[in-house]
Amino acid sequence: MIEIKLIPQTEFKRIHNADLNKHNRLELLGDMCRANALATVKRAGSGHLGSSFSCLDIVTFLYYAHMNTVELGVGHQNRDIYFSSKGHDAPGHYAVLYSLEIISQQQFINLRRLGGTHGHPDVHISGIEANSGSLGMGISKAKGMAIAKQMNGWSGRVFVMTGDGELQEGQIWEALQTAAYQKIANLQVIVDFNKIQSDKSVDNIISLGDLERKFKAFGWHVQRCDGHNFADLESNFTRFDQITDKPKVLIADTVKGRGVSFMEGHRVLEEKEDLYQWHAGAPDDNSFEAGYAELTDRINTRLGEYGLEPLTTELLETREKNRKRLKDTAEKVVNAFGDALVEVGAKRKDMVVLDADLSADCGLRTFENTFPQRFIENGISEQDMVSMAGGLALQGLLPIVNSFGVFLASRANEQIYTNATEDTKIIYVCHYAGLIPAGPGKSHQSLRDISLFGALPNITILEPCNAIETKLALDWCVNTAEKSCMLRLVISPSPRSITLPQDYRFTPGKGAVLTEGTDAVLFAYGPVMLNEALKASELLEEDGFALKIVNLPWLNQLDGDWLEEVIGDCEFLFSLDNHSPYGGLGDLLLNGLMASPALRQKQLEKFGVDDFPACGTPPEALQYHKLDGKSLAVRIAGATNRQ
Amino acid sequence: MIEIKLIPQTEFKRIHNADLNKHNRLELLGDMCRANALATVKRAGSGHLGSSFSCLDIVTFLYYAHMNTVELGVGHQNRDIYFSSKGHDAPGHYAVLYSLEIISQQQFINLRRLGGTHGHPDVHISGIEANSGSLGMGISKAKGMAIAKQMNGWSGRVFVMTGDGELQEGQIWEALQTAAYQKIANLQVIVDFNKIQSDKSVDNIISLGDLERKFKAFGWHVQRCDGHNFADLESNFTRFDQITDKPKVLIADTVKGRGVSFMEGHRVLEEKEDLYQWHAGAPDDNSFEAGYAELTDRINTRLGEYGLEPLTTELLETREKNRKRLKDTAEKVVNAFGDALVEVGAKRKDMVVLDADLSADCGLRTFENTFPQRFIENGISEQDMVSMAGGLALQGLLPIVNSFGVFLASRANEQIYTNATEDTKIIYVCHYAGLIPAGPGKSHQSLRDISLFGALPNITILEPCNAIETKLALDWCVNTAEKSCMLRLVISPSPRSITLPQDYRFTPGKGAVLTEGTDAVLFAYGPVMLNEALKASELLEEDGFALKIVNLPWLNQLDGDWLEEVIGDCEFLFSLDNHSPYGGLGDLLLNGLMASPALRQKQLEKFGVDDFPACGTPPEALQYHKLDGKSLAVRIAGATNRQ
Repeated sequence: MIEIKLIPQTEFKRIHNADLNKHNRLELLGDMCRANALATVKRAGSGHLGSSFSCLDIVTFLYYAHMNTVELGVGHQNRDIYFSSKGHDAPGHYAVLYSLEIISQQQFINLRRLGGTHGHPDVHISGIEANSGSLGMGISKAKGMAIAKQMNGWSGRVFVMTGDGELQEGQIWEALQTAAYQKIANLQVIVDFNKIQSDKSVDNIISLGDLERKFKAFGWHVQRCDGHNFADLESNFTRFDQITDKPKVLIADTVKGRGVSFMEGHRVLEEKEDLYQWHAGAPDDNSFEAGYAELTDRINTRLGEYGLEPLTTELLETREKNRKRLKDTAEKVVNAFGDALVEVGAKRKDMVVLDADLSADCGLRTFENTFPQRFIENGISEQDMVSMAGGLALQGLLPIVNSFGVFLASRANEQIYTNATEDTKIIYVCHYAGLIPAGPGKSHQSLRDISLFGALPNITILEPCNAIETKLALDWCVNTAEKSCMLRLVISPSPRSITLPQDYRFTPGKGAVLTEGTDAVLFAYGPVMLNEALKASELLEEDGFALKIVNLPWLNQLDGDWLEEVIGDCEFLFSLDNHSPYGGLGDLLLNGLMASPALRQKQLEKFGVDDFPACGTPPEALQYHKLDGKSLAVRIAGATNRQ
Repeated sequence: MIEIKLIPQTEFKRIHNADLNKHNRLELLGDMCRANALATVKRAGSGHLGSSFSCLDIVTFLYYAHMNTVELGVGHQNRDIYFSSKGHDAPGHYAVLYSLEIISQQQFINLRRLGGTHGHPDVHISGIEANSGSLGMGISKAKGMAIAKQMNGWSGRVFVMTGDGELQEGQIWEALQTAAYQKIANLQVIVDFNKIQSDKSVDNIISLGDLERKFKAFGWHVQRCDGHNFADLESNFTRFDQITDKPKVLIADTVKGRGVSFMEGHRVLEEKEDLYQWHAGAPDDNSFEAGYAELTDRINTRLGEYGLEPLTTELLETREKNRKRLKDTAEKVVNAFGDALVEVGAKRKDMVVLDADLSADCGLRTFENTFPQRFIENGISEQDMVSMAGGLALQGLLPIVNSFGVFLASRANEQIYTNATEDTKIIYVCHYAGLIPAGPGKSHQSLRDISLFGALPNITILEPCNAIETKLALDWCVNTAEKSCMLRLVISPSPRSITLPQDYRFTPGKGAVLTEGTDAVLFAYGPVMLNEALKASELLEEDGFALKIVNLPWLNQLDGDWLEEVIGDCEFLFSLDNHSPYGGLGDLLLNGLMASPALRQKQLEKFGVDDFPACGTPPEALQYHKLDGKSLAVRIAGATNRQ
């Protein structure tokens, strides 16, 4: 068994009030927050430790020793404002907010759970000033807050934390340029300069070059310091307050994973040939125990040196050690995509794969290592990546452009549009499509991507449901499609492997019947929603209700004859979108029904994610949106009985 | 009468082959291209002269004296590639392409006409290498072309021209950062540094600061020269070819409007208190005649000095002088919006208006001058503007965010999404909504904006049809709406002022009947499409067909009871979108019909812009998409007779 423990608020009070040298106290508080962040991430099963730890000393310093926020209260108009632009350092930030009683223990220990704290910052959580998680927006938002304070005649400074990889986003430089011209002096930016992005060093993705020189050229007041040295932090932030004519940026040299020896960036990169594995995800049980022990031992040793009692912790949970998890065994369509990329790419020498620092998550690593000369790592610069793909395509190559759907379809939308107007062929792969996993929260869940591509007249949109269909889909996009395609891929392990009919042929506008039934037809796609659909049909079957489930991977093409055939005499139709009900499969079917006199009077009910996506475990999120199998069964029964 | 004349290709040949000093020859060719660009812009009635003229000497130098493109042919794989990232300098570029017989006279003289050349570059025109017109994408696209040349083993350099105001776009800095790291040495960027953006000096919008320093800090090889001095251009571009280890940027100091004394930037700004009026639009008849005379006189004087015959020109067209045009008298909803902003803003002290360098076009200038402290000019940085608005809203202000719909809804889409997840209230105004004006081309016509906002669960989308409804809409958004709104506004003069019923009440989800009729119902919105709808009903009436026209300004809200009432017994329904048929009013109605058992079996046909928007005059574009009144009448009659 492993034990997950919490350092309670009372302990933070004790240290806060202890008669200690200020910097020694901050050191202790910082490590205590690290221990609590580690515990909540382990409990959640996911979360970002590396960059929580690299900036935690800075966040601790700001809240405990520099800002007026706790004293005035997080709702006070004259408060100092702090938020993180990178956002994945939320577990560390929550730990500080919990330690100061700004969020409750109940909320804090439920990281990435419904009703707990979100995987990325959300303003509905007390003490969180802005939503982030998508990179590059923070300085602009902080700029707005700082201007608003001036317009409202409110005092208080605005502090915003950025990552270093994040500085590859163009919006950062837009904001630096406008903020300097607008002379926003109550704005202070801190760069958590830990030199590592998702799993490689920044210099191995897109080097930032001479950062101080860049910020100075953009007209900012620049200082640099050791982000783990509290004396250094104090003197630098004190000096900032004397600069009243321009915005200020502090480049804080930090260590990713700081505080747990085997998570510390430089050491890991030396040992692992430049692959850093502590950016995201919970540590395995042994690593968790070792890391937690190292932190608490150091804290207790110091407490002893200062003549203080050792830490009292509270047991949150014990769980079986090294238990098997779904993801260890389940099918993942993204892995099938990765394999297919290499197979197809071996034959198509004109194929070029583009990445925006999500190579591992998007299943690109094998292609990256097999065909390095046809793999372009472009860093966290989605717009540049997409327009570059346009240029590659204009010169006769076939670009496969990868990122999470919420970033690619949205951040680079106008670049995708401009490419489309050139009538070249480009394949856009929107990874992490849909509601699940729901732990990271709104900034990562992609529920609008179909609608963001939908009005492009020359792009085919499709989402495969299992490994086989994923390979068929990629092969079709590369070798059959005449124009551009958008491929939606779920990133989470498939809760079950969807079985396709033996005679299944992958044909534009046509789907496959997965279960026969005459009482109603449910159209769905992708592993997540087809699994819930199958659960629903199993439940309905118990009441003698025969639900026909149709897998339709084509999200903007529909074969009218096939539709009439598959619906037949059935009166009740349902669609299930792993997307907003706006612009998805439901609306495609509505148009299909209207186009057919035989189908025009049929009744279709659309199921989809009709609000911003909930944060939580998959069952929590699915149930919240009434899209889990059980809720679907109830909704389908209700809709059909009502007639 | 005024005469519009063309300098024919034979004259360019004559000068090109004349025994002249190289730089004198280039001077002549540049001015001859200026004269032809001026003629085509005057003929089109719109187009960008200021920045065509500022970079024309550079473009002339590249094609006539530096690139291998003409020699090898524009389709050759080893050709040098040139394109413009800013794109609005297209008239000048076309003039060079025409002079070199890369495009035909027929195509060249039909600027902004169907089958002619587009208002912004389009690859379907011979010699155009990339689509642009939306700013900031060019360096990224050129980067892709340059990498492709390397991958394909093709020689040739890639030259891309950017504006200076354009450097406010973040994507530029993304591209500069990645290109330097990727060491793309066959890439050469030219900055047309004319120091003026749409109608103000760059330093009065968002200053670029020390541009050389910025480019150097980003790792580029930087040179600076006089963009109108051919000797200077020659030596700088020659030096570039010796730099083989990094990308290169030439900062070319130029004069906006160069070549026509009264259009030259510095002079205009001195006289007009920093308002430059020659960026876009055709000059009035007197200015055209004076400008054309100045250019041709100078050319002929030089020809005389060189002992050459004066120019022979070809008469293209004579037209009545100072004729009245629609825009001189017609209603413009954008003007009504501008007035309403000031009225509403006078009462709402929390209202802040944001602009991205389109103040005049978006009708903001009166507010800008009346409430300068509540007007934020953010330059061509839409993403920064939108996130800044998010920060302003989080601090209790009400931001009204303005840009053209195609830029705002698309370029800043993810920033709009993130703001929406914070549940603050922001009003986004998508100007230049829809198909008309169709002269500027795809990069400016906004036909996807409804779909780009549509999946946001907490934003109301509406488009008013006349001045009265525009004021009602803004007042509703500011004073009644609880959440964010997206207001679509047509930018062109209304072909007719739409008359609303006396008893019209502006109510969410409900529209107004404009013409009574029982044979069919047509739902539409906005001045452009309602005008075509009314034309259609007038034509149908001649055949005794009574069409009921309903104005429905609410594009994502529908009142079910009202819908049943307004449709009544009518069997045939039509929707008319000034937008893609995907995600617009048509789909809203499809959902509304499905929700009502009484309406479910009705037949709805959707009309909309179902391809990329055509470039041309309003009648040409409307007819091309079969959305003009006559085509609509035919389509409606056909659909109803077919039954």
